Amino acid sequence: MNVAELIRKKRNGGELTKNEMMYLVLGYTKNKIPDYQFASFLMAVYFKGMSVEETAILTEVMLYSGKVIKLDSICGRKIDKHSTGGVGDKTSLIIAPIVAAAGVVVPMISGRGLGHTGGTLDKLEAIPGFRTDLNLAEYKKVLKKCGAVLIGQTKDIAPADKRIYALRDVTSTVESIPLITASIMSKKLAEGIDGLILDVKTGSGAFMQKQKDAETLATSLINTAKAFNKKVMAFITDMNQPLGNYIGNWFEVLESIQVLQGKKVDDLCELSFNLSGAMIYLGGKASSITEGIKISKELVANGKAFEKFLQMVELQGGDTGVLLNPERYPKSKYIREVKATQSGYLNKIDTYQIGVAAIELGAGREKIDDAIDPKAGIIFHPKIGERISKGDIIAEVFTDRKGKMEDALARIQSSIVISNDAVKKERLIKKIIN
Amino acid sequence: MNVAELIRKKRNGGELTKNEMMYLVLGYTKNKIPDYQFASFLMAVYFKGMSVEETAILTEVMLYSGKVIKLDSICGRKIDKHSTGGVGDKTSLIIAPIVAAAGVVVPMISGRGLGHTGGTLDKLEAIPGFRTDLNLAEYKKVLKKCGAVLIGQTKDIAPADKRIYALRDVTSTVESIPLITASIMSKKLAEGIDGLILDVKTGSGAFMQKQKDAETLATSLINTAKAFNKKVMAFITDMNQPLGNYIGNWFEVLESIQVLQGKKVDDLCELSFNLSGAMIYLGGKASSITEGIKISKELVANGKAFEKFLQMVELQGGDTGVLLNPERYPKSKYIREVKATQSGYLNKIDTYQIGVAAIELGAGREKIDDAIDPKAGIIFHPKIGERISKGDIIAEVFTDRKGKMEDALARIQSSIVISNDAVKKERLIKKIIN
Repeated sequence: MNVAELIRKKRNGGELTKNEMMYLVLGYTKNKIPDYQFASFLMAVYFKGMSVEETAILTEVMLYSGKVIKLDSICGRKIDKHSTGGVGDKTSLIIAPIVAAAGVVVPMISGRGLGHTGGTLDKLEAIPGFRTDLNLAEYKKVLKKCGAVLIGQTKDIAPADKRIYALRDVTSTVESIPLITASIMSKKLAEGIDGLILDVKTGSGAFMQKQKDAETLATSLINTAKAFNKKVMAFITDMNQPLGNYIGNWFEVLESIQVLQGKKVDDLCELSFNLSGAMIYLGGKASSITEGIKISKELVANGKAFEKFLQMVELQGGDTGVLLNPERYPKSKYIREVKATQSGYLNKIDTYQIGVAAIELGAGREKIDDAIDPKAGIIFHPKIGERISKGDIIAEVFTDRKGKMEDALARIQSSIVISNDAVKKERLIKKIIN
Repeated sequence: MNVAELIRKKRNGGELTKNEMMYLVLGYTKNKIPDYQFASFLMAVYFKGMSVEETAILTEVMLYSGKVIKLDSICGRKIDKHSTGGVGDKTSLIIAPIVAAAGVVVPMISGRGLGHTGGTLDKLEAIPGFRTDLNLAEYKKVLKKCGAVLIGQTKDIAPADKRIYALRDVTSTVESIPLITASIMSKKLAEGIDGLILDVKTGSGAFMQKQKDAETLATSLINTAKAFNKKVMAFITDMNQPLGNYIGNWFEVLESIQVLQGKKVDDLCELSFNLSGAMIYLGGKASSITEGIKISKELVANGKAFEKFLQMVELQGGDTGVLLNPERYPKSKYIREVKATQSGYLNKIDTYQIGVAAIELGAGREKIDDAIDPKAGIIFHPKIGERISKGDIIAEVFTDRKGKMEDALARIQSSIVISNDAVKKERLIKKIIN
């Protein structure tokens, strides 16, 4: 096989066979095919896409570039959730313990913050001592003991994805549906799951701003999951405003435990219970999503979900004391408020800018090896459609970085639009696809 | 500036500024930007193209990556010709001496065989002793003395092109109009020319098989030449059959000197005189192409063109003895014939396959460091539309490579179509654009 010919085939809109895809992808990850040829192939894929079959083949090749975890020794169905990322999206922390408490096994391999969004691993690491770097033996041990585990991608899991993602990042080939699909699915399938719930976000704070694109991605993910005989269901959800009110790593842990302890946070609770309900349903412990939602609410009300969370944190080395007494957590040096400059209705939020502000305050990384300040973040109060009076507190802003404060305040201020006319609220769950 | 952002800009159909283009192209050629990012940029250009302005900017950046020769010390206008390449295309060898004999200066920097086509340098090197590797001082000296010179690209000329072309070759990004344009024009403009005649070929033996594509390329080349204030004119010419009858390096020298000595080879003479006529016209030594053609024919008839050819060969170290006594040239070990298997009219030739057969026989390179056998080649007799009788000799085939002969014979045989119905002859010169 000739690499330039395979690139040409894709460039001209052709479909690669399994052998051709293996030759290219494994050749690249084994350093037999140079970066520049693979980069050119990726750009050709960006423009010409891949068929459902090709996407499944690419996923399979990337999946088997590494270890595929076997969880047969653990009883029960294994169901995970994947979110495409947003601002204030801490549902993983809430639903993993709920679903595990319902008797469904939740093996979660999560990521770090990407771009303007936070990452589950960064959030968990805000809990002192919490280890996200368990090896596969420890991973299975925690899973067996408490039914849920949350770790980072190990180097054994889909190494081809790690390699290819790094190349996509610097060659502007990230935004390609088949490449995104194979990247997500190769990691998720390596976890040893039986089923997967997808939360594909759309709106000003999502990677897919248009709902149509989010649905295309969801369909591609579903097709690929089905090609591997996995149970799967996708929620298309609104990301035109932060989810819940807390943004930042410790803040998101805090809001998660509040919800697990029964606090009502409308949008965050609605989405979390829907996702956990669907996972419980796919896991065979409910006969419908509706029943799964009911079970979820019960497990929060009777304290079993929070108990499960504490157990998981403890098993992964985290300090549960601070979860039980959150007032002990260190505070940011600088705290300021953003106030409404006019009265009216909250019309629109540039949620991407809220995410960027949080990163600048210390909640994320601008460069790959930047340190994260777990305390830093934003409490963002109003929701779209709410009536606001001039002078109301829109957001509280927390950072140790004095020099970044003014920028962040201005960024948040200019990201909100207040109108005189009442605004229709967006539906949070726009569609369920399966 | 951020490289990934510039790639993204092009990928999304944006237009790069001069500063951005310089940053990318010079960064790449100075090894500050890695191959993989530039490869991805090239594929984005393949899909999204470049505006006329961007193409001129890219050409300029590539041009000034190296030396631009100054020919002010040599009197008279300097006019070159560029052909996009075909099978049996030896016009450079014929027109350079004609045009120089007419008093127009012809500084030609030529290339080697590419793909299925021959290269002017390889042809000239079939003449024992002929040096195509003159340095710039020698180049000017020959040009001053005889008015024509034919050399290869030195490492001082557009080094960015050499670097980028090598990358395009292995990343399937050769076939892009703006990239082809900048590659050709950066080299041609470095020669120190005042004007340029373009021979853009179309048909089964050309790189641009469709006339529409050839016209698009011609227009792009013309626009770029004009952006540099050069006189320019493009001929769109037929390459649905070999030009003349001789294919192979020495064979093409032989047919060229035959034409320079007055032999009538219909298509080869028609194209050569048109091109030389246009060059003489652009060079200010004729008031029209028609007058230039008349002058060209006179210079052949009175022997001055052939005399000029001999002078140029001598100045570049070549043995003119063998040109005066071509029967002394060594002969191939194996000579065979391809005969017509049916009577009828020559309907069609897959000229690409004729070119490939010549390469296999030894007339070109399959790999970059293959040696060339200057004697090897094909004499292809009939022209499209000619009446053929079963058993007529279609082609004579010459090689030292015994093992390649059967393949070549079969390839030539299967590349021709003979039909019962008469066939309309194609026009050789399809269009002149300026």
